[in-house]
Amino acid sequence: MVVKSQIKFIKNLQQKKYRTQNRLFVVEGIKAVRELLNSTIKVHKIYVTDSSVLGLSGDFIEVISEGELKKISGLATPNKVLGVFHIPVPRPLDFSDWVIALDDVRDPGNMGTIIRLCDWFGVKNLICSSNSVDCYNPKVLQATMGSISRVNIVYGDLQKVLSKSEVPVYGAFMDGTVVYKEEFSKSGILVMGNEANGVSEAIEAVIGKKISIPQFGTKTTESLNVATATAILLNEIRRG
Amino acid sequence: MVVKSQIKFIKNLQQKKYRTQNRLFVVEGIKAVRELLNSTIKVHKIYVTDSSVLGLSGDFIEVISEGELKKISGLATPNKVLGVFHIPVPRPLDFSDWVIALDDVRDPGNMGTIIRLCDWFGVKNLICSSNSVDCYNPKVLQATMGSISRVNIVYGDLQKVLSKSEVPVYGAFMDGTVVYKEEFSKSGILVMGNEANGVSEAIEAVIGKKISIPQFGTKTTESLNVATATAILLNEIRRG
Repeated sequence: MVVKSQIKFIKNLQQKKYRTQNRLFVVEGIKAVRELLNSTIKVHKIYVTDSSVLGLSGDFIEVISEGELKKISGLATPNKVLGVFHIPVPRPLDFSDWVIALDDVRDPGNMGTIIRLCDWFGVKNLICSSNSVDCYNPKVLQATMGSISRVNIVYGDLQKVLSKSEVPVYGAFMDGTVVYKEEFSKSGILVMGNEANGVSEAIEAVIGKKISIPQFGTKTTESLNVATATAILLNEIRRG
Repeated sequence: MVVKSQIKFIKNLQQKKYRTQNRLFVVEGIKAVRELLNSTIKVHKIYVTDSSVLGLSGDFIEVISEGELKKISGLATPNKVLGVFHIPVPRPLDFSDWVIALDDVRDPGNMGTIIRLCDWFGVKNLICSSNSVDCYNPKVLQATMGSISRVNIVYGDLQKVLSKSEVPVYGAFMDGTVVYKEEFSKSGILVMGNEANGVSEAIEAVIGKKISIPQFGTKTTESLNVATATAILLNEIRRG
């Protein structure tokens, strides 16, 4: 049985404040929970409506009713399993390979897509400015499709990290050098800016090289979405 | 004043059935409405809460109260302007340049992002299978950022079009030739599949060449999202 204080505790984890306080986050759905159970991320507690769903047993598993799941879930239609996991302690950033840096990316869907892209392209380190959306936000987790466990995500002072960088710092801009002309080195940092404002002035000042994706259509178009641009630039870096 | 029958009429346009019946669609927000007014798409009626917002006058503009806007809007927080526009009659597909073909893309966000990508990369023709999400769906329009007016979108029998094609037909698959090795010709068709199932068997049978984006990370990862994959492949085609 899930008591009232537990319901409140789990529901609170929908908010960043409580996630940070408790160093815990929530993931829902069989596939996503199973993927995290098979990762290096440590489990705190799993709630299931049917003990056979995960094919697992252990102290950390509690069978609850569908009504109870509805009370602790953040979804309109809860999906059999809710897992509470420990937020991993970030490892120091490794600059021997490419690192993506996000300057105030705010949309959870974009953040999730970018984490998934890092995973696809084998980028193991992601640094986010403190004002970027929290990567343990449920909507981010939904978009990452489990890749969150394979990317080391660090929040911090972007300007400080970039200004001290020993590897080349690239940034995505509307008016940079055409990316196709760029010969990327083995390692570097690629900075992607905020959805509405792009890269901030403070960060622009510590960027070594501005790059851009050429526009082939009518010039009246909006810029590319930040997740889409990240996809194209990561592909450019990796294709060699 | 907006009478009851008008409210019902406009609200109904949130549904594909009524859009198809009336050949009309709804767009909300100052920026999006202004962009469509400046395009070749014909206006039917504009509702504004403040006549100065668009800096325009005409028979087709009606000033209404915020309460009235709330009644006709599909948004939780309506934004000053709601426009009703005529669905343009699609032009015949032009195969002298690249064409994107969508095989049952169902997510409005993905459809909108792909239309925006076509516009960015100067792809003027998009063909969608009949089961793909309607491009005049309000959620699609929100993601297109106005580029809907610059892409000719045709719904139809994909298999029929592809089997008769005189230009090369490419398709995105997990197990195709690495896209970096491909020398794309001046024109062709690129087929992108459904979010969950990829390209269907019937369509796969009429595809000349399977291509894929290499995976650089751990091999346990999910496939790339269809909009992200379209971004990378369109970039590959245009970069030359």
